[in-house]
Amino acid sequence: MRNSNRQWKLARYPEGMPKVDDWVLDEAPVPEPGPGELLLGARFLDVAPYMRGRINPAKNYAAGVSPGDVMIGGAVSEVLSSNADGYAPGDLVVCDFEFGWQDYAVLHAARVRRVDTALAPAECWLDVLGLNGVTAYFGLFDAASMRAGDTVVVSAASGSVGQIVGQLTKIAGGRAIAVTSTSDKLEWCRELGFDDGIAYRETDDLAGVLRKLCSDGLDVYFDNTVGPNLDAALQNLAPRARITICGTVSLAGRFGEADLGERYWRQVLVARARIQGFLVLDYQDRYGEARERLAGWVREGRIRQRFDIAEGLERAPEAFIRLLTSRNQGKQLVSV
Amino acid sequence: MRNSNRQWKLARYPEGMPKVDDWVLDEAPVPEPGPGELLLGARFLDVAPYMRGRINPAKNYAAGVSPGDVMIGGAVSEVLSSNADGYAPGDLVVCDFEFGWQDYAVLHAARVRRVDTALAPAECWLDVLGLNGVTAYFGLFDAASMRAGDTVVVSAASGSVGQIVGQLTKIAGGRAIAVTSTSDKLEWCRELGFDDGIAYRETDDLAGVLRKLCSDGLDVYFDNTVGPNLDAALQNLAPRARITICGTVSLAGRFGEADLGERYWRQVLVARARIQGFLVLDYQDRYGEARERLAGWVREGRIRQRFDIAEGLERAPEAFIRLLTSRNQGKQLVSV
Repeated sequence: MRNSNRQWKLARYPEGMPKVDDWVLDEAPVPEPGPGELLLGARFLDVAPYMRGRINPAKNYAAGVSPGDVMIGGAVSEVLSSNADGYAPGDLVVCDFEFGWQDYAVLHAARVRRVDTALAPAECWLDVLGLNGVTAYFGLFDAASMRAGDTVVVSAASGSVGQIVGQLTKIAGGRAIAVTSTSDKLEWCRELGFDDGIAYRETDDLAGVLRKLCSDGLDVYFDNTVGPNLDAALQNLAPRARITICGTVSLAGRFGEADLGERYWRQVLVARARIQGFLVLDYQDRYGEARERLAGWVREGRIRQRFDIAEGLERAPEAFIRLLTSRNQGKQLVSV
Repeated sequence: MRNSNRQWKLARYPEGMPKVDDWVLDEAPVPEPGPGELLLGARFLDVAPYMRGRINPAKNYAAGVSPGDVMIGGAVSEVLSSNADGYAPGDLVVCDFEFGWQDYAVLHAARVRRVDTALAPAECWLDVLGLNGVTAYFGLFDAASMRAGDTVVVSAASGSVGQIVGQLTKIAGGRAIAVTSTSDKLEWCRELGFDDGIAYRETDDLAGVLRKLCSDGLDVYFDNTVGPNLDAALQNLAPRARITICGTVSLAGRFGEADLGERYWRQVLVARARIQGFLVLDYQDRYGEARERLAGWVREGRIRQRFDIAEGLERAPEAFIRLLTSRNQGKQLVSV
């Protein structure tokens, strides 16, 4: 154990695409747990697209990180000392947001969940058994009302949420079409069971290619990006199509700037499409239902995941930027 | 009775905003009713924004009018001769689409509904007791799930559907905000019971004015226009806002052209807004339920309407263009 706690603090709100020096690596004493609390040591830190919205001064759905604050983020961590019944040193736990990009954190036991590595490896608890799993589950089955027989198009399909959406689509009897940045990511999606797909950086007619892949239009579009991928989807809606706007990662480099382009409202009307802005936090009281089903599919080997793990706390900002610029290969994490 | 049937036929698909000479006034023999059919003489012909989508070669939700065809349109008409049980000369009937812009039409009795002028004047059967009433009813209460206490913003608020949406909002315990083109139309909306509003041609900061009128954001936006009105609404969404895309009249002058401008997908996500493309024809099996309630409110004097009636069949194209360019004052009709 280290004799100090390294912490990534936000130095300033990034302008456009974040840069490594928008954070500063500081040191603090290792914190002490109070009654009911745990001292936790990081094993895996999360980096995820939602964090871009939290380091921006504009209105968001949740409180942001201000310059000077330790960067937000979930983690799988090990209990180092425990003042809480039922937890002992060596236990692994997971929390979704509150750990932060640091070596150690003190959290109340009520803020963590137990990690069961007999069910799935530790890193899975930040992915399919963490927020990404419930995001895919409710975004697909609830917000988009996906049904057997639906053609489901997923953007950022090889990313943390996208991978799971594709596999849930297959489990539920749909046809899964991947939209990825590059063909090697598309290849991985095919290995996961996606039926077909497009690498958008390798075509200049995304809408046209999508039309060929979905000749009757798409029934569901699960969007993690907005931007040109959404534009292409809106030109290929089946009647009564349902769209989940789950993420806006294509805007990561230009937060606060206008997103100019074509609008497709006539197509939305003609298709009688439904577009749902989606935030998984609205489903907190139903996480249990989703996690039980997801754990069952993991146990049966019906959901696989790929991870892209950067080694060392010092690489957290770099790993985050790697994700925002689509260079990651699977769910991005940082091992500590 | 005339000895020939004047008919407005589409001469060509309009480019951009329709012009009067996109139609040609032709003459044909007065048609003869077959078994079960009625010969009908026009009293009021409908002109409505949906017709713009029907005289365009692009994909739409329903079959279009081709060059050479008689222009589509509903009408209130009088039975001139009847081969159908239960109908006699002098009866008034209404149909939603199939009459067409002409003096006379033959329709099967199953395609018309009876007009009861004891309940409301004949022209109301092309408005609140016609398609506009059911459009407002299902677009507000079903597609937008409007509830008591909601702040409801309506574009084209003095138009045929908008007037009714505002009055239904008040009946259902909401706050109704009108967006109109000019202040005289806004004044009319206030007389109808709208709480407040904006004349968009008289401000260069529609989003800012809307923010002042809806300081907690808008809960429902009932959109008949898309374009700048929708842009302003998307910048002022309350959490869980619901948007009905009912019409796209701002695009009437540039059908088939790209609609370029700012996109607000991040705002849709942050608000977890729901946007529903809406077409009243999807609710045909529930029209009865809506019409019964609407008729009740008309009977109680709780829904009023304003009409803008052009005199004479020869003015039908002119009246339609008047509507598309926002120069009408209330529901536009043509009397014959």
